[in-house]
Order: sequence, then C-alpha cells, then structure tokens
Amino acid sequence: MIRRIQERKTAVIVAGSWGLALSRVLAEHGRQVTLWTRKEMQVEQINTAQASQGSGLAPEIRATTSMEQALFGADSVLVVAPSAAMREIAARIRPHLPPDALLIHATKGFEAQSLKRMSEVLAEELPAYDSKRIVALSGPSHAEEVAHRRPTTVVVASHSIAAAEEAQDLLLLPWFRVYTNPDLVGVEVGGALKNIIALAAGITDGLQFGDNAKAALLTRGLAEISRLGTAMGANPLTFAGLAGLGDLVVTCTSKLSRNWKAGNLLAQGKPLTDVLAEIGMVVEGVRTTESALALARRFDVRLPIAEQLAQVLFAGKPAVAAAEDLMGRSRGSELEEIDA
Amino acid sequence: MIRRIQERKTAVIVAGSWGLALSRVLAEHGRQVTLWTRKEMQVEQINTAQASQGSGLAPEIRATTSMEQALFGADSVLVVAPSAAMREIAARIRPHLPPDALLIHATKGFEAQSLKRMSEVLAEELPAYDSKRIVALSGPSHAEEVAHRRPTTVVVASHSIAAAEEAQDLLLLPWFRVYTNPDLVGVEVGGALKNIIALAAGITDGLQFGDNAKAALLTRGLAEISRLGTAMGANPLTFAGLAGLGDLVVTCTSKLSRNWKAGNLLAQGKPLTDVLAEIGMVVEGVRTTESALALARRFDVRLPIAEQLAQVLFAGKPAVAAAEDLMGRSRGSELEEIDA
Repeated sequence: MIRRIQERKTAVIVAGSWGLALSRVLAEHGRQVTLWTRKEMQVEQINTAQASQGSGLAPEIRATTSMEQALFGADSVLVVAPSAAMREIAARIRPHLPPDALLIHATKGFEAQSLKRMSEVLAEELPAYDSKRIVALSGPSHAEEVAHRRPTTVVVASHSIAAAEEAQDLLLLPWFRVYTNPDLVGVEVGGALKNIIALAAGITDGLQFGDNAKAALLTRGLAEISRLGTAMGANPLTFAGLAGLGDLVVTCTSKLSRNWKAGNLLAQGKPLTDVLAEIGMVVEGVRTTESALALARRFDVRLPIAEQLAQVLFAGKPAVAAAEDLMGRSRGSELEEIDA
Repeated sequence: MIRRIQERKTAVIVAGSWGLALSRVLAEHGRQVTLWTRKEMQVEQINTAQASQGSGLAPEIRATTSMEQALFGADSVLVVAPSAAMREIAARIRPHLPPDALLIHATKGFEAQSLKRMSEVLAEELPAYDSKRIVALSGPSHAEEVAHRRPTTVVVASHSIAAAEEAQDLLLLPWFRVYTNPDLVGVEVGGALKNIIALAAGITDGLQFGDNAKAALLTRGLAEISRLGTAMGANPLTFAGLAGLGDLVVTCTSKLSRNWKAGNLLAQGKPLTDVLAEIGMVVEGVRTTESALALARRFDVRLPIAEQLAQVLFAGKPAVAAAEDLMGRSRGSELEEIDA
C-alpha cells in the first residue's frame, strides 16, 4: 500500500464554504493548503485574514486565482466545485495537474444534460490522469459544523482501494472520521439524489404534516435512491451507509439546507421561479429531479416521489395534491416496494 | 383471502396514549371500540367525555375495566401494553379471547429476562390461539400526531400474510397508510432496538456534537440494529423500511421521545438513577440496552454503540469519553462494518 503523506501540499478548488472547511481539516494535518478561487477579492480577504489572529484560518492556508500556482507541487487536489461548473474547472486543471497527485472531489450532483457523475466528468476532461484513482468524498457533513470542529464522519470512495486509503490518511483526524468504500457509483449517486428528498421533506414540513410523515418520506425516499442507484451499478449496502442514509438524514432534518428551504416555500404555493428568486442561490435538488427522472427512464426504474415532485416544480401541481397522490397509492407490501 | 371487516368490534388493551390514538383510527372506520384499562377513574373520564361534544373521542369508543366485557364479541384485539406488562396482560386475555379474533400488538421491546419478542410472549400465554396469526404493528408513529390525524405510515407484520392483510384492512385510511411485511422478527426487533440509538442520540445532542455527528450515529446505529436483527433471523431489508429506518429517524429527531430526553440528561453528567427519577416514567431504552447486549452475546454479534451506552448507563463512564471511544475506533472500510 502506497502512503504518501510525507509530501505536504494540497490544492483546494474552489474556496466555497465546504472548500474552506476541508482546508481547515488539511491544515490541522500540518499541510500547506492553496485555495483556488476566481475572485481576487476573496484572495485578498483570505490572505489578509491569515495575518490577523483569531481568523479561524490556519497560517498554512493561502489563496490564489492562479490555477498553475494552486496546483504547483501539490501531491493532492481536492475539487469542491458546483456540479454545473465541474467540466469547466476540470479543463482548467488539466494543464497543471501533477500526474501523481491524488484527485478527490466533494461535489454532489450529476452533469445536467449528459447525466454523468462527477468522477466521469473529471475522467473525460483529464485523459492523462489515471481515472481509477479519482476519489469521491461524501457523507453527512454540514460545512459550518466542520468549520467548528464538530465530530463528523465521512466516506471516501474510489475504484482504487489504495487511492481511497490515501484520501483517508490525508483527512482522518480524531474528530473527523473517514471511512473508505469501494463503491464509487453508489457514493456519488447517494450524495446527488438526497437533494430530491430534501426538497420533498421541505414540502411536507411546509404543509405541517409532522414527524411521522417526514420519517415515512425519508424511508420511501431512501428506497427510491437505492432502487435507481442499484440499477446504475451501485452496491445497495452503500445506501445504508454515510453517503446514503447518513447524508439523507442530515439534509432532511436541518433547516440550513437550501433544498429544504425551497420545499418549504413551494408548500406555501409559491411558483418555482419565485422560490428560486427568493433563495437567490443554486438549489441543486431542482436540477437533480430532472436528471433523476431522465436516469430512471434510461434504467427503467420507478421513482414515485421524484415524479410527484417534478409535477410540483415544473407543472404547477399543488403540493398538497402531490402529497395526497403519494399517500393514496394502492396498499401494498413493504418489502416488495423496497426490493422492487 | 379472508377479509373480515364486516364484523364490527375491536378491543384495545390498554388505554395509553398510543392505544387511544389507534382507537380513533378504528372509530374512523366505523368500528365499535372497547378500551380496557385498570383504572376506574380513566373509564369514567373516557365514558363521560363521550357524552360531551368536542372531546376528540368518537362516540363509538367506550372504556371498561372488565377484560371479559372488553373482549366479548370482538373480532379483533389490539394490545398496546408496556413490554414489562405483556405477559401478565396476555394471561388476563386468555380466558376471554375469541379464538377467531385477529390479534395485533403494537408494543416495542423485549421481555427483560427471557429476551423474548412480544409475539413470542403472547404465543406462550395464549396456547389455544393460532400463533401464526399474531400481527405486530410498528413504524414511525408519534401517538400525538396520529391523534391529530397527521399523515402517518405504519407496517403490520405476521407469519401469516392473510393475518397481516386483515390488519391492513382494519386500520388503513387515506391519512393512515398501512403496509404489510411478512418479516415478524425484523419488525419487532427494529421497534425494540431503536430506543437504544434514541438514548445515544439524546447524549450526542446533549453534548452539542451537532447534526453531522447525529446523522453518523443513526447510520452506524441502524447498521447495528440490522446486524443483530439479521442474526436473529430477520430480513435485512426490513431495517431499511418503516420499522427500521423510519422509526429510528422519528425517535432520534423528536424531542418528544423519553429515550432522547434521558440521553440528554445523561450527557449533563447526571447518574442514571437521578435521570430516571427526573423523567418519572419508563425509559424503554435502558432495559433494552441490557437485553440487546445479552442477545448480542447469544448470537455472537458486536454492538459498539450499545456497549458504550451500557458503560455510561451502568458503569458511570462519562458520556464524552464513551463518544470519544466510539469515534476513535480504528479507521476502516464502511461496507465491511455494515455487512459484518
């Protein structure tokens, strides 16, 4: 097993809240971290904050707008880009990526039109890189809690066990537990699809259906995620793990989630355009609902929750009517539905 | 398939909050419901409330302290007793139980010394009854929400599919969804063991570990429940369903749960005797932790969360130290632990 923690520099791309939180984890390992961002102003903020005490940023973290500088001499690269930006970011990385560097991404979502997973997008845009070594990081991990060093457990997945173990060594701390998983497909699919159920959970909470209804939604929702993921080649056990159940629970029960907030506003009868304008940021679950239904058609899988959600999002169906149609499905056997 | 909803009387034993809530479900079906309770005063309260408007109790619900009267002419019996009282209640039922009546229980827990499931206790005490037809009702169902007709989804399990379907017909309403499951063992074990994880969730919340930690605990907790349950003969899929994941989520995320409250007080460093005195009611998770560890020895299964919890409950180990020992376990592969 090759362990490469002797070398010392990690590039983190881009400097969002999750990129910053993971940079702190890396700095606690004594690593040099170079954060890449498009924004000159953010570079200045971060590098100035480094000079002042109590900024919360370790002195080992520096920012730059130069991809060449960010990647130069890095033995590991952590990509935390929005899913819509992944292909463009990968193309920017291409000329500067050290071929031996470990490549980890922590982005949850599919590419919109192609329906590709993030590791597939990276592999396509980085043909000189050994794609088997790409690692996906996922699991229940609010960035704010990681930034405050609250106990957190994540999973790193890769087709290469050795690469997953490298990522584990790179990030593992007493308060930041890292498990490996060989099921790259399952870990990526779980992280993407949970946003659909988080939107639906926001709706049931907005309709004041209560905790019983939300627990049932999570249960049926995880079965739906597992059904599509398994059809796509994932190991069903992955969905019982941190990137499935774990991430689903944290996203659906936290009022910090943008997806949950959007669902809550939809339950009040607001049309999608107004809801998105009010939130003012990307709501990943909206795009993911479309992607999931396209994938469901491709793999011939039924997704009743995503179907009803799409009716609410894109066809103006009242949320109550969608919920009633879900509840009103013919009575059945639980295991047949879970195992379908 | 035999469907027996033509007959009209159901006995509900005993008149706790869950028994009362389920009585309302039955009354909404137009059934006569006779609630049995030990307490003369409660009989009077319920029967007087029936006369007044707006009591929330349908006119079809009557109470009695006579087991003979409660069971006379009943085509179905719903037992909702505390697990510690199940054997004694079953013995009281024995002389009066109509042999053709459908017998459903909605009690979560094991018998303390024997480690028997509730359906096993009922079968032993009711030798003249066809034990294959015993049905267990479980799933995410706060009684208060059911009493307010909030959308709720439960599962009914029996060795006899026909009996489970009878229970489904008896209870199914547009807002109260009932799924069948042939896995009686899994449904009973899931409902009992989730209280252990709820206690632990109260502890992590009391220690202010945050949502990431709680989601990880739920994930590892469900794996632990599934491991023991499968060793006991359950279908692992059941734990991905309403009586596993669903009930776990609702119990661990609700501040209404006595188990969660007890964990919260334990996190503050209070000894168990003080905590139990402060709560003043049965905290099922405490007894279940002992039962689960005894079952784990019998079936040769490791339960790291229950083990640490037992140290806190019975050996005075500080909750923080237990949490650290859980977090500090050797780094590993996720699927190996889930599948262990």
